[in-house]
Amino acid sequence: MRKIETVLSPALFHLYEDGIENKIVVVIDILRATTTMCVAFENGAESIVACATPEEASNFRNKGYLAAAERHGETVEGFELGNSPQEYTREKIAGRKIAFTTTNGTRALQMSSAAKQILVGSFLNISALAKQISKSDSDVVLFCAGWKDKFNLEDTLFAGALAEKLSGGLEITGDASQAALDLYRLACGDLQGYLQKASHVQRFKSLHTESDLDICLQMDATKKIPYYSNGLINLLRYESAH
Amino acid sequence: MRKIETVLSPALFHLYEDGIENKIVVVIDILRATTTMCVAFENGAESIVACATPEEASNFRNKGYLAAAERHGETVEGFELGNSPQEYTREKIAGRKIAFTTTNGTRALQMSSAAKQILVGSFLNISALAKQISKSDSDVVLFCAGWKDKFNLEDTLFAGALAEKLSGGLEITGDASQAALDLYRLACGDLQGYLQKASHVQRFKSLHTESDLDICLQMDATKKIPYYSNGLINLLRYESAH
Repeated sequence: MRKIETVLSPALFHLYEDGIENKIVVVIDILRATTTMCVAFENGAESIVACATPEEASNFRNKGYLAAAERHGETVEGFELGNSPQEYTREKIAGRKIAFTTTNGTRALQMSSAAKQILVGSFLNISALAKQISKSDSDVVLFCAGWKDKFNLEDTLFAGALAEKLSGGLEITGDASQAALDLYRLACGDLQGYLQKASHVQRFKSLHTESDLDICLQMDATKKIPYYSNGLINLLRYESAH
Repeated sequence: MRKIETVLSPALFHLYEDGIENKIVVVIDILRATTTMCVAFENGAESIVACATPEEASNFRNKGYLAAAERHGETVEGFELGNSPQEYTREKIAGRKIAFTTTNGTRALQMSSAAKQILVGSFLNISALAKQISKSDSDVVLFCAGWKDKFNLEDTLFAGALAEKLSGGLEITGDASQAALDLYRLACGDLQGYLQKASHVQRFKSLHTESDLDICLQMDATKKIPYYSNGLINLLRYESAH
């Protein structure tokens, strides 16, 4: 039976790299990188380059890219876009290429490079993602990007939610997957209420980006599935054709 | 207000080392190192040397120590003791010094060396431990030893149980502490039943040490609090005097 494993922090990813070349990795950074990527593609972005540093993102401007950079939860000075999904409107980004760097999410994508397939997950595309994964024949690693290598609740809850959607056909493997699933079941009646305890949500309040949380917890707002390959994020062809 | 933080794996400990010299670290390896240490002191062991390797533990035999070594859940060949609390009977260990090495627990103790105080925690001494911590004035780090750096449910549940006992006087800080607390509250009605999903319990079944689980989940079987300092585990004087 195909298996689902869960990585609760990038600092634990090395423990799951065995055989990764045969596995699908779902990268999860709910607040906000992977959510924002889903919004960007839903609103017509052409592609996204995942950059390691703001400098690297900035250099893509010469090639006509929009440059987006976030560090420590805030837009880096001098950049037209940060990491808030609300900034990625159709008006701004339809048909555009974006060079994007964030504290946790883009790093987790890069760490997953050796995987068979790397999908970008968020509550916005969770059902499309589950459907796509169900059709494949690989084991799955749910990779929580965390916050500066620390465990966080929002990524873990999403891992649990996706594990639940997949649990009919795949085996939930390991204590981390079990914990994610149980925490999700505990919280699912009121995700937003539950996440008031999350340290990142507290951080949001101090950064005045609280309204992002509503967007980041929207279920099934898009059927688009971004995937990462060779530094580039594009739309999976199957899903973009539907 | 004093704070409680939770480290879900030794691979995340470095994220919590800031100011560790002013903090109490509780090292948690429920299945089974820290449980077995509590049993050993309850049954009259004089002291325990935490060794990094079976070879190091073996060398202490010349000085009259009992040598205990566990790797991958099993007693290392040629050692009189392993890591099962059932082996640490009063007949065998009263008045004896023990040289002890295990896969995860002794390593976590050694990693904590820089802390102000390092306490050995298990369900067996949980109330004594909570009382002792309440009387101090330091922040607390609950350090789950995990399994080969992976997150595990049993250590996390204990962290949640201890956090709950301390929550009246200390602030539960960070998403990991919150998750541990919520998982404990979910599981506390039937810890043994809940832990049937834990991968370590599955491993136990294959190693025929299932009966250890009953012992490892006993609440308040002892008032003894072992502490670690300079490679040695001894009894806290306050508690041993009562």
